[in-house]
Amino acid sequence: MRIEWVAKRRGQSNVTQMYYARQGLLTEEMHYVAQRENLPVELIKDEVARGRMIIPANINHTNLEPMCIGIASKCKVNANIGASPNSSNIDEELEKVNLAVKYGADTVMDLSTGGGNLDEIRSAIINASPVPIGTVPVYQTLESVHGKVENLTADDFLHIIEKHAQQGVDYQTIHAGILIEHLPLVRNRLTGIVSRGGGILAKWMLHHHKQNPLYTHFDDIIEIFKKYDVSFSLGDSLRPGCTHDASDQAQLAELKTLGQLTRRAWEHDVQVMVEGPGHVPMDQIEFNVRKQMEECSEAPFYVLGPLVTDIAPGYDHITSAIGAALAGWYGTAMLCYVTPKEHLGLPDAEDVRNGLIAYKIAAHAADIARHRPGARDRDDQLSIARYNFDWNRQFELSLDPERAREYHDETLPADIYKTAEFCSMCGPKFCPMQTKVDADALTELEKFLAKEPAHKG
Amino acid sequence: MRIEWVAKRRGQSNVTQMYYARQGLLTEEMHYVAQRENLPVELIKDEVARGRMIIPANINHTNLEPMCIGIASKCKVNANIGASPNSSNIDEELEKVNLAVKYGADTVMDLSTGGGNLDEIRSAIINASPVPIGTVPVYQTLESVHGKVENLTADDFLHIIEKHAQQGVDYQTIHAGILIEHLPLVRNRLTGIVSRGGGILAKWMLHHHKQNPLYTHFDDIIEIFKKYDVSFSLGDSLRPGCTHDASDQAQLAELKTLGQLTRRAWEHDVQVMVEGPGHVPMDQIEFNVRKQMEECSEAPFYVLGPLVTDIAPGYDHITSAIGAALAGWYGTAMLCYVTPKEHLGLPDAEDVRNGLIAYKIAAHAADIARHRPGARDRDDQLSIARYNFDWNRQFELSLDPERAREYHDETLPADIYKTAEFCSMCGPKFCPMQTKVDADALTELEKFLAKEPAHKG
Repeated sequence: MRIEWVAKRRGQSNVTQMYYARQGLLTEEMHYVAQRENLPVELIKDEVARGRMIIPANINHTNLEPMCIGIASKCKVNANIGASPNSSNIDEELEKVNLAVKYGADTVMDLSTGGGNLDEIRSAIINASPVPIGTVPVYQTLESVHGKVENLTADDFLHIIEKHAQQGVDYQTIHAGILIEHLPLVRNRLTGIVSRGGGILAKWMLHHHKQNPLYTHFDDIIEIFKKYDVSFSLGDSLRPGCTHDASDQAQLAELKTLGQLTRRAWEHDVQVMVEGPGHVPMDQIEFNVRKQMEECSEAPFYVLGPLVTDIAPGYDHITSAIGAALAGWYGTAMLCYVTPKEHLGLPDAEDVRNGLIAYKIAAHAADIARHRPGARDRDDQLSIARYNFDWNRQFELSLDPERAREYHDETLPADIYKTAEFCSMCGPKFCPMQTKVDADALTELEKFLAKEPAHKG
Repeated sequence: MRIEWVAKRRGQSNVTQMYYARQGLLTEEMHYVAQRENLPVELIKDEVARGRMIIPANINHTNLEPMCIGIASKCKVNANIGASPNSSNIDEELEKVNLAVKYGADTVMDLSTGGGNLDEIRSAIINASPVPIGTVPVYQTLESVHGKVENLTADDFLHIIEKHAQQGVDYQTIHAGILIEHLPLVRNRLTGIVSRGGGILAKWMLHHHKQNPLYTHFDDIIEIFKKYDVSFSLGDSLRPGCTHDASDQAQLAELKTLGQLTRRAWEHDVQVMVEGPGHVPMDQIEFNVRKQMEECSEAPFYVLGPLVTDIAPGYDHITSAIGAALAGWYGTAMLCYVTPKEHLGLPDAEDVRNGLIAYKIAAHAADIARHRPGARDRDDQLSIARYNFDWNRQFELSLDPERAREYHDETLPADIYKTAEFCSMCGPKFCPMQTKVDADALTELEKFLAKEPAHKG
């Protein structure tokens, strides 16, 4: 679809959606997004120009179906996939992409750290994906120096970043916000630095006593991103790894730097979103969202969870969906999913499914709470189907129709039960949905009550 | 344990904890509860006297380990069990009680509607349960008139209510708040009346054009409850059955009546908690909690969920855990769990487990957000174990140790991996918890930074 759209842009020195928006131009991507979101295209353009919305759309990702991330549009969900050194191959990764898209992932991050030719896997994923692909180039950069952190140079980073950009990656996590002067601030943390990429840069800075090369070479990255329209996803290397460490000085110091970097990228019309925590008690989530808006001039916020308690490994899709729903309600633009295997192991297909549905729930609940026009329509339709015992329609409208049907059919598989006025939960005599209050009976009652003022409400 | 405690109270005309509290007496139950909650016993007494806390403890439930429900104490979780006409027997129900207690249920409601001798099942459950047992007597009352709603009389209700009280039920859901004049208010709802008990009373009132017999005979119920110390759990028959119907006139009209009934019970020193919704968008939950406090003079609030969206059957333990966490944070005293089978079928053991853990998460997250003293201690201990790669300790501290271990061992079962500095999620080279920032290295860095003012934070 985008082949023709991008053909005419090739060779221009800046091909970002933000650049066009600021020129007052409406791109095909903006039109497409406006239709998907049921929003005026002028609003999309204005939000992109303002930096409050991004359309992550690398000109080399031509099979992309453009989408947007920003407070003006529906809350989005990201799913992480990726091969690890011990497992996975291209076919498995492509299967995960399909699975993620099937269950509603709005973007997919390829976090591969090994398990084959990383470039090849990434290329296959991009070619197979209708949704934006994000990457974290620092992993491959480290691989390129055989895991020796101290050997990393700025050129190593820039080389891999440009490679990803050329391949069509739509957004990249860039850990440019963690500065050498932030490191002493983690001293009193329970879990130190828990960003994989951030940890690598911290080690580098501790070894060399030099400033973060991604920070010192940020302008070089901007130049690369301009050419392909890669969006920054500014990494929060100092995000808290447990509720104890939430909202601490280290996290907030980095956030301030992320705000400065946001505005620096915007000077070059490069799109930016900002990553956020992590592990945060419920009562600190609103503060975190507002603070990010303030420090980062309302660039879209993209949070991981956050988990609202640390005591439920095996159920962290739930501990974090609670935090994610709140974050979305307060205005977070995209939620990065967490699977039940978080902290415990590599997620399998069923984990991806459970993680994604938990996050679709969180994002949708946030849209309802924010009163986005039409957000509750599907809920209402499902409720009507439920009240009318139209089981098949109820399943269809579910976030995971197969699961809903499977659970129902576990006890009542026969076709006849698809119109039955009960399920096995309460049985045929006690289904509360059977309490149909007849309109005529109500009218009659109202007449009666009118004559009996003692009963008047 | 309680046999001696209650022996001396027998024959007194009022044996409620509230009665004793208002006399300034400290019961054994209050002492026990104070110890469990790590709160001063005087506070427990004052809260019970004030009606802001209940200790549901029927004098005939002698093997009970007393607990309390109220805003001053930790947020509690209830699990529903119960035989249905098509399934279950005593052994199965007792197994469910054990399961519920194992996964942390603070109270258990027996919602049996059939499947054997209801009295026998209930008695067995009470005798097996260290946690308070709640019931909904209207189900058995309806059974006693062979399902013919119109044949129900006030005496039928009172007979069953007293039967349950005699057996040792600690709290009973009494649907006294739904009044005949409320019924016309449900006309514009999508899902009408979705309380099983409330629906029965609505049908009765529509048929007879008479006031709710549980309302007109509320004082008779009070007299029964005084004798055994049964707590009211005032049912919210008009709770919304979908997000569309949330916080509507019908719900709020009934809530006002529930407040009046609360104060009526308090006049006789009978303990009360008030049931709440149901299905509520996130942005209306705080309103619902505050409104209940206002209308019901701060009697403990006991909510079912609420579900924050209707589109995820099969995952309603998650849609509702989000709402429950918020409700708990805003001050709800007890959360009634919802299982993944909600709206679809009868939960099995695995569903009970998943529902309960989701709710333990919600209640705990609420305790953290409310800054209850020590609420985060377990989180911090687990985070430290995680950071130190002490996998066994991490599992031990988990809400569901078996599940955490199972997930971890799925890919790395060997014993040696229980001290490995990674799991299969990120593999041996990329575990973020490996980024240990050495204290000496930090001190060295600080000295360096002190000499290089350009890097000063």
